Amino acid sequence: AGSSHPELAQEIAAYLNTRVSAIHTERFSNDNLAVQLGESVRGKDVVIIQSFTPNVSEHLIEMLMMIDAARSASAKTIHAVIPYYSYARSDKKDAPRISIAGRLIADLMAQAGVDHVMTMTLHSPQVHGFFSVPTDHLTAHEVFVDYFRTYDLSNSVVVSPDIGHAKRASRLAKSLGIGVAAGDKERQTDETVTISTIIGDVDGKDVIVFDDEIATGGSVIELASLLAARGVGRITLACTHGVFSGPAIQRLATMESVDEIVITNTVPIPAHKRLPNMR
Amino acid sequence: AGSSHPELAQEIAAYLNTRVSAIHTERFSNDNLAVQLGESVRGKDVVIIQSFTPNVSEHLIEMLMMIDAARSASAKTIHAVIPYYSYARSDKKDAPRISIAGRLIADLMAQAGVDHVMTMTLHSPQVHGFFSVPTDHLTAHEVFVDYFRTYDLSNSVVVSPDIGHAKRASRLAKSLGIGVAAGDKERQTDETVTISTIIGDVDGKDVIVFDDEIATGGSVIELASLLAARGVGRITLACTHGVFSGPAIQRLATMESVDEIVITNTVPIPAHKRLPNMR
Amino acid sequence: AGSSHPELAQEIAAYLNTRVSAIHTERFSNDNLAVQLGESVRGKDVVIIQSFTPNVSEHLIEMLMMIDAARSASAKTIHAVIPYYSYARSDKKDAPRISIAGRLIADLMAQAGVDHVMTMTLHSPQVHGFFSVPTDHLTAHEVFVDYFRTYDLSNSVVVSPDIGHAKRASRLAKSLGIGVAAGDKERQTDETVTISTIIGDVDGKDVIVFDDEIATGGSVIELASLLAARGVGRITLACTHGVFSGPAIQRLATMESVDEIVITNTVPIPAHKRLPNMR
Amino acid sequence: AGSSHPELAQEIAAYLNTRVSAIHTERFSNDNLAVQLGESVRGKDVVIIQSFTPNVSEHLIEMLMMIDAARSASAKTIHAVIPYYSYARSDKKDAPRISIAGRLIADLMAQAGVDHVMTMTLHSPQVHGFFSVPTDHLTAHEVFVDYFRTYDLSNSVVVSPDIGHAKRASRLAKSLGIGVAAGDKERQTDETVTISTIIGDVDGKDVIVFDDEIATGGSVIELASLLAARGVGRITLACTHGVFSGPAIQRLATMESVDEIVITNTVPIPAHKRLPNMR
Amino acid sequence: AGSSHPELAQEIAAYLNTRVSAIHTERFSNDNLAVQLGESVRGKDVVIIQSFTPNVSEHLIEMLMMIDAARSASAKTIHAVIPYYSYARSDKKDAPRISIAGRLIADLMAQAGVDHVMTMTLHSPQVHGFFSVPTDHLTAHEVFVDYFRTYDLSNSVVVSPDIGHAKRASRLAKSLGIGVAAGDKERQTDETVTISTIIGDVDGKDVIVFDDEIATGGSVIELASLLAARGVGRITLACTHGVFSGPAIQRLATMESVDEIVITNTVPIPAHKRLPNMR
Amino acid sequence: AGSSHPELAQEIAAYLNTRVSAIHTERFSNDNLAVQLGESVRGKDVVIIQSFTPNVSEHLIEMLMMIDAARSASAKTIHAVIPYYSYARSDKKDAPRISIAGRLIADLMAQAGVDHVMTMTLHSPQVHGFFSVPTDHLTAHEVFVDYFRTYDLSNSVVVSPDIGHAKRASRLAKSLGIGVAAGDKERQTDETVTISTIIGDVDGKDVIVFDDEIATGGSVIELASLLAARGVGRITLACTHGVFSGPAIQRLATMESVDEIVITNTVPIPAHKRLPNMR
Repeated sequence: AGSSHPELAQEIAAYLNTRVSAIHTERFSNDNLAVQLGESVRGKDVVIIQSFTPNVSEHLIEMLMMIDAARSASAKTIHAVIPYYSYARSDKKDAPRISIAGRLIADLMAQAGVDHVMTMTLHSPQVHGFFSVPTDHLTAHEVFVDYFRTYDLSNSVVVSPDIGHAKRASRLAKSLGIGVAAGDKERQTDETVTISTIIGDVDGKDVIVFDDEIATGGSVIELASLLAARGVGRITLACTHGVFSGPAIQRLATMESVDEIVITNTVPIPAHKRLPNMR
Repeated sequence: AGSSHPELAQEIAAYLNTRVSAIHTERFSNDNLAVQLGESVRGKDVVIIQSFTPNVSEHLIEMLMMIDAARSASAKTIHAVIPYYSYARSDKKDAPRISIAGRLIADLMAQAGVDHVMTMTLHSPQVHGFFSVPTDHLTAHEVFVDYFRTYDLSNSVVVSPDIGHAKRASRLAKSLGIGVAAGDKERQTDETVTISTIIGDVDGKDVIVFDDEIATGGSVIELASLLAARGVGRITLACTHGVFSGPAIQRLATMESVDEIVITNTVPIPAHKRLPNMR
Repeated sequence: AGSSHPELAQEIAAYLNTRVSAIHTERFSNDNLAVQLGESVRGKDVVIIQSFTPNVSEHLIEMLMMIDAARSASAKTIHAVIPYYSYARSDKKDAPRISIAGRLIADLMAQAGVDHVMTMTLHSPQVHGFFSVPTDHLTAHEVFVDYFRTYDLSNSVVVSPDIGHAKRASRLAKSLGIGVAAGDKERQTDETVTISTIIGDVDGKDVIVFDDEIATGGSVIELASLLAARGVGRITLACTHGVFSGPAIQRLATMESVDEIVITNTVPIPAHKRLPNMR
Repeated sequence: AGSSHPELAQEIAAYLNTRVSAIHTERFSNDNLAVQLGESVRGKDVVIIQSFTPNVSEHLIEMLMMIDAARSASAKTIHAVIPYYSYARSDKKDAPRISIAGRLIADLMAQAGVDHVMTMTLHSPQVHGFFSVPTDHLTAHEVFVDYFRTYDLSNSVVVSPDIGHAKRASRLAKSLGIGVAAGDKERQTDETVTISTIIGDVDGKDVIVFDDEIATGGSVIELASLLAARGVGRITLACTHGVFSGPAIQRLATMESVDEIVITNTVPIPAHKRLPNMR
Repeated sequence: AGSSHPELAQEIAAYLNTRVSAIHTERFSNDNLAVQLGESVRGKDVVIIQSFTPNVSEHLIEMLMMIDAARSASAKTIHAVIPYYSYARSDKKDAPRISIAGRLIADLMAQAGVDHVMTMTLHSPQVHGFFSVPTDHLTAHEVFVDYFRTYDLSNSVVVSPDIGHAKRASRLAKSLGIGVAAGDKERQTDETVTISTIIGDVDGKDVIVFDDEIATGGSVIELASLLAARGVGRITLACTHGVFSGPAIQRLATMESVDEIVITNTVPIPAHKRLPNMR
Repeated sequence: AGSSHPELAQEIAAYLNTRVSAIHTERFSNDNLAVQLGESVRGKDVVIIQSFTPNVSEHLIEMLMMIDAARSASAKTIHAVIPYYSYARSDKKDAPRISIAGRLIADLMAQAGVDHVMTMTLHSPQVHGFFSVPTDHLTAHEVFVDYFRTYDLSNSVVVSPDIGHAKRASRLAKSLGIGVAAGDKERQTDETVTISTIIGDVDGKDVIVFDDEIATGGSVIELASLLAARGVGRITLACTHGVFSGPAIQRLATMESVDEIVITNTVPIPAHKRLPNMR
C-alpha cells in the first residue's frame, strides 16, 4: 500500500485474509522520495494500492517507484489498484497544446513495469482504453442500486448535473425504474460552474443528484440550490469519489436543503470532514 | 490516397495545389492485398488519405500496407488523414472480453510506422487519447454553425438523439444561441434503438437533430417520428459522418417529416444514395 | 477459433480432448467488426486458430481483435495457430515501394499481444524470421513421405514447378529415395505463368508435382500439360495449402492427365470444390 | 520554462537572444496539474527548462506534461534542460528492494517523448548512462577553475568530504596545480553524517572544500568544524548545486570559520537565503 | 568507416567527393573495445561502412558501438552500409533451438540506434524483411550482366551449385538470354558438400557457375570438377561476395579447369589472395 | 554455459545438484558463429553462464545467440549469469563521441530477450542502473572479509590504488575495523598509470591493496613499488576479477615485495598463469 489510503488497503487485506506489507517511504533533504519494499517479493504477485489523492504528484511518483522497485526485485506480477484515478478527468484535448494526462500517466505506469491495473468509475469509460496493460474497470453501480432500493422511490428522479455527461445517471435511473433529468451546465473556470437550466421534469419530486466525483462541489451545490428553488422534495447527493477539496465540506455543511450525501470509500475522508448526513 | 474515398483526396490535393500520387493496389489469387506506391517517396512528406468505409477491414489493411511501404521506402514523415475513423465507436468495454478496437487500430497504425494522424469528429473526444502519435482532431462544428446561421433560428432547438451523448448538440446550440433537448435512448441491438421520451422543450419548435454519424439511421428516424408526433415545426437532420448503411437511405427517402439532411463529405455518397433534400 | 476454419478447430480440440470455446463475432452497421470471447480467459492459456483464407483482411482483423480481447482480459498466454499464413508470399521486395507484408502482419500480431505462433509450411522458410515472438514452423513433410511410401515409387520423380523454389521438392525426393526435376518458370502476372522448359529427366516416369500451395493452379496446370505432352506416366499433384481460388477447381476438374491431387487440411475445402481425385 | 527556476530560463533566453514562451500551469480542485503551452510549437524545436527543486514531484510531473504536450502538438524536437537533476543521487541499490530512481525518471522522460537532455554535474558521471536519449552532461569545472585562479593558491589544498567520491575534488586540484585530501565519511541517516578523520595533509593550509551539492550541509559543516579544529587557514565551501534545504542556511550563517561559499545558479536561491559570503 | 574494409570506404567517399572521417578504435587490456568518432556529428547525417569480414564478432561489436556513439552524440541520421552481411546465411531454423541470427543482428542494430541500412546481395532476398528500419537491398546483377555481355555467349549456360537456391542464376541466365542448369547439392557439414548430379543440359557448353558467395569454395570447386569431368568448355566462377576463407584460395589456385573468377569488392581481398585469373 | 568459463558453470551446477546442458557452438567458414542448445528448453527456466573474458566480442555474440535461441525455443525464463561483466568499465563519457558500452551491451541483452541478470562487483555500483531487466548485483565483500579475518590485522591498512574509486576499499576497511589510504592516480593511457603520491598513513603497516579488477596490473604494481619504497610491512593484493592480461602475470611473478594475491574465480585462470602466491 502506498501512503495515500492505508485504511482501504487494510480493509482489502482483511477481506482477502492477507496482510499489508510494510513500505518505507523516505523524503531526502533535497526533497527526493525513496521507497523500500518491506519484504522480499521475488517470484510473488505484488498488489500496490494507491489512490490519487492530494498530494497527487507525490502519490503518483511514490507509486511509480513502488512498481519499479517490485519489478527490479523480480516480482512475478505487479498489480496496481487505483480506487480513484484522478487524472481520468484529463481525458481529451478541450484546448490546444495540453497533455491528455490520463493517457500519459497510464503510459508512465506501463513504462515503470506494471502488469495489470484495477480502477473504479473512471470519469469517462473511454479512459479504460488509455491503458496498454490489462485493466479492470470496476463500477459502484450495483452498490448504489442496492442502497437506493431500500428507499421509497415512488416519486423520485435521478438528476445529472451535466447533460453532456448524463449516461451514468441515466443508467442508475433505469436500474431503479425511475426517470432522469439533467442540468445544462457550463464550466466557467475549474471552480466556477453555471447551471442555466434543468432539462426534464423534477418539480415536486424526490431527487437523487448523481455524479462520478465531487471535488469543490460547485456543480452539485448550484444544482441543489436550483432544485430547492424549484420546490422539489428530498435531495440526496450521490457520487463514487468523494474528493471534497477546498471549501466543499464547509459549503455542504451549511446547505440545509441537502438531506443526505452518499459516497464510496475510494478516497479517504478524514474525521473532521465527515458530516452527519454522510453515508 | 487509399481506395476508399478518391474524390476527397482529389479535392484536398486541388485545394493545396498539389496532386494525388498513384497507388497500385492488387489482389492476389489467394486474396492477399498488395500495395505499391506510384513514385519515389525518399525524403518526402507522405500524406495518406483513407476513410474507414466498407469494406472497412480491407481499407484498414490497405492503409497499414501503404504506411509500411512508405516507411520502408525512407519517407521523411508519414501522415494519415482519416476523415471517418469508424472504430472510434469501439471506445470502451461495455461488455467483458471484447477488444477496445479504437485503441487497437491506433496502436497498429503506430506499429506500421505512421508519424502523425489527422481525423475528424471522433465518436467520443476521449478517443483522441488512444493515439500514441501526435494527432489532430478536427471538427465540423464551425462548418455547421456557419451553415445554420443562414437560417431563421428564432424558434429553433437542437435535439440530441441520446442524453448520454448530448455534449456536441449542446455545444452547437450554445454557438447558435438556441436551446437544447435530448432523447432518452436505449440501444437494443446494433440496429434497433428505442427512444422512450424526449427530455426538454420542443413543442412547436423548428428542430435540428444533431449527431456525429448516421449509419442505419435508426436513432434519428425514430426521433424524427416522435418529434413529428409531438407536432414540431421544420425538422432538419445534421451529422458529420453520413455512413447511410443498409436500409438507411430507403427509410430516409420515405420520411416526409424530414425537411433537410445536412452532412459533410467525410464518407463518399454514391449518386444513387443522394436524396433531393441532402446538402 | 476464428471464423475461417471451424472444422479444423473442432478436429484439433477433439484430438486434444478439449473443446472449442464460443466466439461471438458481430458486424456493425458501419461495417466495423466486434469480437467477444465466449468465456472467461483470466489466467488461462488461450489458443486462437485462424487460417488466412478469403476474406483474408477480415479474418486477419478478427484474429487481431481476438488476441487483443484475450490480452486485455488477462489471459496467461496467447497462442495463435495459423495453418495457412497467406502473407508468407509477401516475403521480399521484388518491386520498389511495396510492403513486405509477411513481416508487417507478424509485427501487427506482436503489437496486438500474441505470445507464441504456430504455423505450417511458410512459402519460404526465411519467413520464420519475420516473427518476433517464439514461433513453431511445422511442416507436412513427414505426412507426405508417409503417404507416398505406400506407393510403388520404382519409376518416379518429384518435380518442382519452379527451379527457383525447388528445395522442398528436392527434400521430398531425397526422403523418398527418388530423383528431382524442376520447371523453369516465369511469372507474367499473378495469374499467368509460363514454364518454358523442364530441367532434369522426367520422360516416361511417374511424376509427383510438389509445391507449397495451389491458388489459381496456373503453375501446376501448365506443368502438368507440359509433362503430359512429354509422355510421362501417372501424374500426382501434391501441396500443403489447397487454396483453389478462382477458376482452379474448374480447370483441375477438366484435366484428365492429372490422376490424383493430394493436399492437407490447412485450408477448408467446401463440398462443391471437392474433386473425386482429391485426398 | 517550467515553474521551478524562471530566472535561469530568462537568463538563458537573454543569452541566446530569444524569449521564454509562456506556460500556463493550473492546479485543479482534485489536485491534478494541467499544463498548456502558450504558443504553437508545430514543427519547432522546443527547449524545456526545469530544475528538480522542491516540490520535486510536482516539478517532475509538470515537466513530463510539458514534454507530452509539446510532443502531441507536433513539436519537431524536444530538449529538456535540467540544471539540477536531483534524482542522480538515487544511482545504485545500496539497499534491497529500492528503485534506482535516477534510471526510472530518465525512462519516464523518454516515454513522455523527450528527444534530448542537457544536465549538469550529475552526482556520479555514470548516471549519464541512465538516459536512453542523447544527453549532454555539462560540468561547472571550468567555471570553478577560472574563479579560483584569481586567488592566491600558494598554500592551498582541495578537500573532498568523502573519500569514496573524491574524483571531482581530485580533478579540480589537478587543474589548479594544488594537492588533494579527503574526509572519511560515514552516512548515518540522510541528515546525519560522521566524518571520522581527514586523509591527507591539510594542517595550516587554505582549504577549498569541494562537493557536487550541498543539501542540509551536514557533511561540509562537520568537515569545516574538523578543519577549523585542526587549525587550517581560510576555508572556502564550493559546490555546483546549492540546494540548502532545511536548516542548511541557518547553520552556515552561524559558522564563523567558513570564509566564503561559492555556488552556481542551477538551483534558485531566494533572497532570504542569500548569505553575505555567498558568490 | 569501421576497420573491416577501409579501401571500400575510401572509394565510396572519393566517388561522392567527400572524405572518410577518422575513427579511433582501441582495445583495452581486458579485451574491451572502445570506439571514438573523430569529429563532431551533431545534427549531421552519419554513414557507417562495415563489411562483416573476419573477425566478424569484433567488426559487429565495433559497428554497434559506432552507431551508439553517433546516436548519443546527437547525429541527425545514422546509415549503416554493410556490403557483405555475413549473417544473412543464418536465415531460417534448419535445426531446432538455434538462433535466426540474421534477424537477431538486425534487431541489435535497430536497438543500437541505426536509422537506415544499405546492404548487397543477401543470401536470400527474404532477409530484407528481417530489418525493422528502412533498408535498401542492392544487387550486383546489372554489373554481372554488363560484364558477361562483353563475352561470346553463343554456347553458354549459367549453372547454380544448388537447385534449392537457383533463382539468382536463373535470373542472370534470362538477362543474358542463355539457359540455366543446377547442381543437386547436399551439405554434409559446413565445409563438406556433395553434388550428386547436375540437372539440366551442360555438355560441351561454356559454363558460368554463379552463386552469391564463395567461402571455402567447397560447392563451386566440386561443381567445377564435375563439370570438367563432363567435358564442358570454358568454366567461369562468378559471385558477389568473395570471402575465400580457409583453403579456398589454395584450392582455387591449383584448379586448372577454372578459367576465370569474377567477384565484386564487397569483401577486401588481400594481395596474397589475389589470383591471376581474378577480376 | 557459454564457452568462456566452463569450470565455473560445472561448479555452480554441482553446487545446485543439477547439470550443465550441452551447447554446440560452431564457427562457419565465413567466420559466422552458430549456437545450438543441446536439449529442449520449452517451458523451462534457462540459466546462461558467460564471463566476458577474451575474446570478449565472441563471447558476447555467443551469449546473445544463446539468449535468442532460448527465447525463440519458448523458454519460460532466461537468466544470464555474468560473473565478470567487463564492459562495466565503459560506464561514463570521459571523452566526447564515445559509446557508454556498459549501457549499450545491457540494452542488447534485453533486446535479445533476457529476463534476468546476475552479475558481480561491477566497476561502479551505478552500472546496476544500466540494466532494464531485473538484475542482481552480487559482491565478494563477505568472502574477502571472511578471508582476511583469519589474519592478524592489528597493524594493517587497506589501500585503494585510486582516491577517485576508494569506496570499496573504504568499506572493506570498515568491515575489518582497520584504516584506509589511497593512491592519487592518473591514468596516462590504458596501460600506463602514474601514482604520484599516497594519501593517508601507511608507513610500517601491513598493507592490503584492494581493487575491483587487475588487468595489466599497472596500477597495483606501481602502488606496490611505491609502498615497498615507503617501507611497509607485508603486501597483499586483493581483487574480485583476476583478468591478468598482457604482461600482468610476468610482472607479478617477478615482484618480490608482493607477499600474496587474493582473487575470486569470476575469470578462469589457466594453469600457466597461476602463481605460487595466489589464492
